[in-house]
Amino acid sequence: MILTVTLNTALDITYRVRSLRPHTSHRVTDVTERPGGKGVNVARVLAALGHEVTVTGFTGGATGRAVQDRLTTAEGVLDALVPVTGATRRTIAVVDEHTGDTTQLNEPGPTVTPAEWSAFQEAYEALVPSASAVALCGSLPPGVPVGAYAGLVRTAKAAGVPVLLDTSGEALRRGVAARPDIVKPNADELAELTGSHDPLRATQDARRRGARSVIASLGPEGLLALTPEGRWRATPPTRVHGNPTGAGDSAVAGLLSGLVEDLPWPSRLARAVALAAATVVAPVAGEFDREAYEELVGRVTVTGDATAA
Amino acid sequence: MILTVTLNTALDITYRVRSLRPHTSHRVTDVTERPGGKGVNVARVLAALGHEVTVTGFTGGATGRAVQDRLTTAEGVLDALVPVTGATRRTIAVVDEHTGDTTQLNEPGPTVTPAEWSAFQEAYEALVPSASAVALCGSLPPGVPVGAYAGLVRTAKAAGVPVLLDTSGEALRRGVAARPDIVKPNADELAELTGSHDPLRATQDARRRGARSVIASLGPEGLLALTPEGRWRATPPTRVHGNPTGAGDSAVAGLLSGLVEDLPWPSRLARAVALAAATVVAPVAGEFDREAYEELVGRVTVTGDATAA
Repeated sequence: MILTVTLNTALDITYRVRSLRPHTSHRVTDVTERPGGKGVNVARVLAALGHEVTVTGFTGGATGRAVQDRLTTAEGVLDALVPVTGATRRTIAVVDEHTGDTTQLNEPGPTVTPAEWSAFQEAYEALVPSASAVALCGSLPPGVPVGAYAGLVRTAKAAGVPVLLDTSGEALRRGVAARPDIVKPNADELAELTGSHDPLRATQDARRRGARSVIASLGPEGLLALTPEGRWRATPPTRVHGNPTGAGDSAVAGLLSGLVEDLPWPSRLARAVALAAATVVAPVAGEFDREAYEELVGRVTVTGDATAA
Repeated sequence: MILTVTLNTALDITYRVRSLRPHTSHRVTDVTERPGGKGVNVARVLAALGHEVTVTGFTGGATGRAVQDRLTTAEGVLDALVPVTGATRRTIAVVDEHTGDTTQLNEPGPTVTPAEWSAFQEAYEALVPSASAVALCGSLPPGVPVGAYAGLVRTAKAAGVPVLLDTSGEALRRGVAARPDIVKPNADELAELTGSHDPLRATQDARRRGARSVIASLGPEGLLALTPEGRWRATPPTRVHGNPTGAGDSAVAGLLSGLVEDLPWPSRLARAVALAAATVVAPVAGEFDREAYEELVGRVTVTGDATAA
């Protein structure tokens, strides 16, 4: 079982409107809803790849119940979310049918009390020993201490379970110092962490800060990987066009999937790059196009070698 | 007990954002939620005035459960909503903190099946005999026949229970023909019904079409009432400034409240006008300011006489 942690779960709602004009009234022509938050998105892709996945994090209120209903029925993952008094956040993407552009409204999420945070840590400690890998994903809701991920990384390492961290800002800085097995920053997160805008130097710096392997996501240029086993670059075969929402989460799923299958790094990276590209081209934001994935995965270019990291 | 019917109930959500800019991402700084739909708003005001109120209509999905939770705990009304498979709609008002303007996003509401519509009619028939008055409010959700209100008016009249209708368009046209005791159109709804933009002529025409009493809402100018007992104009003492959302629903609550207390028309109209004005000045959209109401109700000007309608 792969365990994904999403402390700030969400119900992602998409509205279609004819044309969004501020300070007027709009009839929404189409409403879609699905569970969200980065770790939930990772879990969805892992489940689609055939892995057994458990989702933990927080759930609260009517929105939390809606997330849980869908997780188990539509997504096929195990729900181990921990209840909180506050309400799970909604995110609303308003798609303008005229221009195709999206306007995003994100609720802040529930404020987690110290008792709720303790309850989560206990639940997490109970789940980790039966996991083959753990992914810690996304932002922290109000009330969760900024060092939260550092503690969760240490718990996984103490249990001997490989742990991947995908977050940003101070939560990433503190989490990296706890020596996670993998971090997967994008170029902005890497620059914020290290102060360097040069991807190679920044990736090297991130490893020095404590991450065992750093997989830097360079958008359409693919991935740069610095690991104890070697360094590689993985590049998609063609420039793909579409919606990049969720591409990073699909890449995380690819890395975890390859990790638990004990694939060598080049195969893990090819899987991650192909899943990210297949997510960009998919018609629904955050889903991946299976056919595109299967067509792309054999054509990803992986260069580098197994000694030079 | 007063019975209010809201076929298209809603969860009214208000978001505050720093400044709404289409095609960008926004952090919502404040989220408020409350049950909505015109009949629910009327029920809230009636309950605040001390009346026993039952709410019926449809409820579905997680949003419907959120509406029901709040109806009974926060609003103090009896929940007699009928379940449907589809999901109760959300409405989202995005308030721009910079300009104070509001952008509205309204979901369409669940599609009601013929079996669900029959189940509602049975529930309604069972509730009506114990009601002192019935209010039929707002738009029809997809799937409910356009003649729905006409049937509900006839059921109330057959039971000898006074019935007020507050809707628009074809649903109003058909409903009026079934001879409700009171209709409360605004100027636009009256013009659409009768083709006349002269309030007095249009109000007279609406009576000829079947309504026993027509209380036309003329916005800041107050109410024009044509009834079998006489004709009156009721005008607020001062021009009030604020948010007119829900003012019409508060006026309906004032009319119903005065009806079940058997007040003479001038007192009912004064109550309705004062409640509408106290709703415009209230800081929260759709609530009424009790102090303003109590100060205004004695100062509403009611002119007219008890024979000339």
